Amino acid sequence: MAYFPCILGIWIFLHHGCVTGYPKQTPSGSEDTRICTSVPPHLPPTATNTSERLSSLRLHMRTHNLSAYVIPSTDAHMSEYLAERDKRLSWMTGFTGSAGTGVVTLQKAALFTDSRYWLQAERQIDCNWELQKSVWVDFISEWILHEVPAGERIGLDPFLFSVVEWRSYSQALEDVERILVPLEDNLVDRVWGTQRPPPPASEIYHLSDNFTGRPWQEKVSALRSQMEHHSRSPTALFLSGLEETAWLFNLRGDDIPFTPVFYAYALLTKTDISLFVHEGRLSPEASQSLTAQCPGPLCVQMPAYGQARAGLRGYAQQAGVRVWIGAEHTTQGFYGAIPPEKLLEEDYSPAMLTKAVKNSREQELLRAAHVRDAVAVIRYLVWLEKNVPSGSVDEVSGAQYVDQLRRQELYCHGPSFETISASGLNAALAHYSPSNETSRRLSGAEMYLLDSGGQYKDGTTDITRTLHWGEPSPLQKEAYTRVLMGNIDLARLVFPPQTSGRTVEAFARRALWEVGLNYGHGTGHGIGNFLSVHEWPVGFQSNNVPLGDGMFTSIEPGYYKDGEFGIRLEDVALVIYAETKHPVPGEPYLTFEVVSLVPYERNLIDATLLSREQIEYIDRYHMAVRKRIGPELQERQLDEEYQWLLQKTQPLSHTSLLATSLGTLAMGTLTSTLLPGA
Amino acid sequence: MAYFPCILGIWIFLHHGCVTGYPKQTPSGSEDTRICTSVPPHLPPTATNTSERLSSLRLHMRTHNLSAYVIPSTDAHMSEYLAERDKRLSWMTGFTGSAGTGVVTLQKAALFTDSRYWLQAERQIDCNWELQKSVWVDFISEWILHEVPAGERIGLDPFLFSVVEWRSYSQALEDVERILVPLEDNLVDRVWGTQRPPPPASEIYHLSDNFTGRPWQEKVSALRSQMEHHSRSPTALFLSGLEETAWLFNLRGDDIPFTPVFYAYALLTKTDISLFVHEGRLSPEASQSLTAQCPGPLCVQMPAYGQARAGLRGYAQQAGVRVWIGAEHTTQGFYGAIPPEKLLEEDYSPAMLTKAVKNSREQELLRAAHVRDAVAVIRYLVWLEKNVPSGSVDEVSGAQYVDQLRRQELYCHGPSFETISASGLNAALAHYSPSNETSRRLSGAEMYLLDSGGQYKDGTTDITRTLHWGEPSPLQKEAYTRVLMGNIDLARLVFPPQTSGRTVEAFARRALWEVGLNYGHGTGHGIGNFLSVHEWPVGFQSNNVPLGDGMFTSIEPGYYKDGEFGIRLEDVALVIYAETKHPVPGEPYLTFEVVSLVPYERNLIDATLLSREQIEYIDRYHMAVRKRIGPELQERQLDEEYQWLLQKTQPLSHTSLLATSLGTLAMGTLTSTLLPGA
Repeated sequence: MAYFPCILGIWIFLHHGCVTGYPKQTPSGSEDTRICTSVPPHLPPTATNTSERLSSLRLHMRTHNLSAYVIPSTDAHMSEYLAERDKRLSWMTGFTGSAGTGVVTLQKAALFTDSRYWLQAERQIDCNWELQKSVWVDFISEWILHEVPAGERIGLDPFLFSVVEWRSYSQALEDVERILVPLEDNLVDRVWGTQRPPPPASEIYHLSDNFTGRPWQEKVSALRSQMEHHSRSPTALFLSGLEETAWLFNLRGDDIPFTPVFYAYALLTKTDISLFVHEGRLSPEASQSLTAQCPGPLCVQMPAYGQARAGLRGYAQQAGVRVWIGAEHTTQGFYGAIPPEKLLEEDYSPAMLTKAVKNSREQELLRAAHVRDAVAVIRYLVWLEKNVPSGSVDEVSGAQYVDQLRRQELYCHGPSFETISASGLNAALAHYSPSNETSRRLSGAEMYLLDSGGQYKDGTTDITRTLHWGEPSPLQKEAYTRVLMGNIDLARLVFPPQTSGRTVEAFARRALWEVGLNYGHGTGHGIGNFLSVHEWPVGFQSNNVPLGDGMFTSIEPGYYKDGEFGIRLEDVALVIYAETKHPVPGEPYLTFEVVSLVPYERNLIDATLLSREQIEYIDRYHMAVRKRIGPELQERQLDEEYQWLLQKTQPLSHTSLLATSLGTLAMGTLTSTLLPGA
Repeated sequence: MAYFPCILGIWIFLHHGCVTGYPKQTPSGSEDTRICTSVPPHLPPTATNTSERLSSLRLHMRTHNLSAYVIPSTDAHMSEYLAERDKRLSWMTGFTGSAGTGVVTLQKAALFTDSRYWLQAERQIDCNWELQKSVWVDFISEWILHEVPAGERIGLDPFLFSVVEWRSYSQALEDVERILVPLEDNLVDRVWGTQRPPPPASEIYHLSDNFTGRPWQEKVSALRSQMEHHSRSPTALFLSGLEETAWLFNLRGDDIPFTPVFYAYALLTKTDISLFVHEGRLSPEASQSLTAQCPGPLCVQMPAYGQARAGLRGYAQQAGVRVWIGAEHTTQGFYGAIPPEKLLEEDYSPAMLTKAVKNSREQELLRAAHVRDAVAVIRYLVWLEKNVPSGSVDEVSGAQYVDQLRRQELYCHGPSFETISASGLNAALAHYSPSNETSRRLSGAEMYLLDSGGQYKDGTTDITRTLHWGEPSPLQKEAYTRVLMGNIDLARLVFPPQTSGRTVEAFARRALWEVGLNYGHGTGHGIGNFLSVHEWPVGFQSNNVPLGDGMFTSIEPGYYKDGEFGIRLEDVALVIYAETKHPVPGEPYLTFEVVSLVPYERNLIDATLLSREQIEYIDRYHMAVRKRIGPELQERQLDEEYQWLLQKTQPLSHTSLLATSLGTLAMGTLTSTLLPGA
């Protein structure tokens, strides 16, 4: 799935985009459906009336002598998807998009979000709120500086901002004499009161050895070994990210939508292990798996989740200790519990970094999940070919059907994110999910984009294909072909060890750039073994770690024509060693192996744009798909799908290959060269 | 000229390289020619005995209660090339390389330098010094942490560290309880005493309107306008970089080798202009050019150079002021003169950023300089072809001859850096400059690399060509062709506005990477109009600014085979608007136009490796060279050179084009397609 990382100075959004400057005006009235000047104000029926909530919030702000209060859209673990009780921004504003920040002053309220969500936000927020079209901390801070005079106080919940984000706000605001107040008492929760949903209580379960790379004890030992060999000699490791705890202990839960994790913190010392979790929530098997070796250095103690900070603080107060944290996933609140001189701070914890490199067993599991996932997607594509012409499929029913096909697959635990099933102009909204209001009927007259994935006990998947059942326009065909060229130019790249994704992602854009096209989202993200569909810190952004053997990342260029169509081609790829003509001893080069196994849309490929190498690559890929998926289809007696597969994976013809290679060469020259007597 | 930016986490040096870890051992004795255990120590005759200087330095350190003292290799303006009196590191250590840091403790002394200089350092430093093979601040700091216990003091001259570097040291050392002492009294200067060379006293001259983009008054007005429109409302701009002052006032001097600048600082407010310089050094014309409009807002006052900090401090103490600085070129010493709340800090000053974008007049000037420069280089290449076979040319005499040819060109002011004239294995040392000791005779049996440039009053040039007059080995030919492919793949790239060089420089590496080859230096750097040959902040590194229309940068991939040969192909290119098939209104895409105009070495091109587009590009480039340089050669009656040019710029043959395009295609298939009756 594509994502829109709005990191300072990194992304230029060509069509929608993170706004780089501070606009002098708020969105013009003509765009805004929220007419606030009439009495009573005219609001779209989709908006939430937030007047009462805001009044109540401002009362609390006054109590704390705050001139502004900042509401982010994450939880205490920096999660991407949120449990209902953590959807504070959504509850406060009515806006349900996944990324945004709210800032409330005593007079004003502003919602900051990125281009994906501007239309949605206009529909959902009421006239108490103004929409600000960027999510950059610098941009938000400029707005705050404009509204809050020097010397006044701005409240933030320190448990909802990572160390890194807190620093950005501090730099932008404290350097110019505004006071950041770390307010542990969350004011939105105060207002929400008893209406706030309760904490998740579902069972936390043990993931059996069939689905894990190695026993949790080995992971713990590996991390302890890293602690021992670190030059700064940490004595403990504190983990905040939900994926790192789930990964480390081979446990899973259902606290968060789409991601099988559970609320917990972990403190790992050389001799002790504390998992801060509601112990009663563990299944007997899970509990047993953690305590079988008690007492001892591989015995997991389970203090309550709410005791995490006290536990960390208590540990850090001892003499001679040093606590290792990853600043991207640790909140300012926990960070503050460790005296600075006892801190070892890196961007990512060693658990995050170890998890990013899948061992051979984990690779095998992820590959296997992708085979079953490909069967589900192919079944859907065949079904579409049959049913779209009759006009019986719309975006919603399509999404439901592909979700259903995935659920029929072995080990499936549901979708890994909300299925993006978008026809025609809806696909130009890169993060569109269909609803009954917006759903379009699929037809041969429009392009259709499907971006979907599954959570399987052996792996998480994420794939995007774009289709056309009729006659595509020349621009659609050109754009699709260039997106495909970008996908495969990056996928077939050979590169040295320690190459950062950020420095090679332009290979996915070059073919589009060549003719003045581009896309405004990231080029790829890591993915987990039955964990996050967007798994940090792997990917192609500036804050990702260098690509290494055993990492999985998506590769997903796209092209979006506002109001007309959208194209994205996404595959998951494994970083592997490359065989090079001139091998470098001890420093093998790397390349990608694509593990998503669904054919591309031949109807949209203009082979004359492709180089010989690109055509050969596509043919090799299609042969690999046929080889892996064909037997699976045959075994299940999915004959129709098997025939479809054979057809879709035929090599691009020699004719097109020749036409391409010769390109603009004058045929006359060629003929006279080959036929000197002619 | 290639450069080796050792920025944290950025460069991986494959063959030489910035070392990433802290080595447990210093360089082994077997590599070290400095046998220190014998009495008296055996030293290479090339080493300087530094015992006395070190003793004296340590006395001063004790006086200040310092456990360590850090000696960088720059001046108070962050210059790349240094005047003799600023070569403190060189005087203290004997090491004459351009990049390095010395750290002296009461017991030890270490020289930190990068791979270019390891051999040279071993030859030049005596046994008082240990060689440490990295220049990263983190690496140096680790060494210091190892030698200096917590709580002890480390001295640094705050006028020799940029704000950015100071912060790096502070983070690495102060966070772990070492005390950074900003010692304004430079201890090396103390020891150097009266032996230290005097300040430069040569005349500072006015650059006539023929050679400048616009009058200095217009530049001042443009900067004042930027101050006015900045959201943080700066009231003054303080300039530390020597190139920014020289550029701003259209003045030049000869204080620094290879770069026509002079020692000065500037403070520009809305109403006043102070140029801190020794006024007596200005030529009457230069003086007149600055004071013609006195009194008034375009009158330049000239307080003494030594008054710069007092002047800045005095201004910054006033109420209601805010001083704008560029942190990359401002030293910690000057930074400290501005109260934090009166500071507007950005990476680069607006003068640096404005200078980076050449206006149409400056572009024209730079192009013209490159035409004359190409004539000089072509004359040299023709001379080499005639004289190398007789064995009468060596690296030194070659370098002298090309320098001499340049000096014969109109407006030439000497070389823009020390000419790199390297044959055979010497070229594998990417920053090699020949000396009488190392000079090799040029011959048809070896490759030869020439990296050189000139300072012309209209522009600075920098070009690298690699040659072979005999039969190159298959690896030489392949590597040359792949380096060329990299050069042109980057040069012909079309990319969106605001693209950072760092995200596209891999296009210059892809063809090498494909077969496991690479190079360990940067891919390009900005260049000035009769200013620095390495002009910040343009280029392809992480701390460069996005590429924009009107910027000039070198493009210079290479390949180096230790002990055998070196290849580099460097051109200067101008960023221009690109015409794309799908134009983006208001956001024109960009590409490069190469302004270096010397043919590539046909003897080293393996056309079968090239794509059709690459061959077409080379042919177009060679036609442009012929068109621009041909008439110049004819006009000067350089007939031999003209014939040479015609020969070297012939299109790569249709035969090779066909062979390439068809590549591995079976000729049989082709024939049967074209000749169905055959």
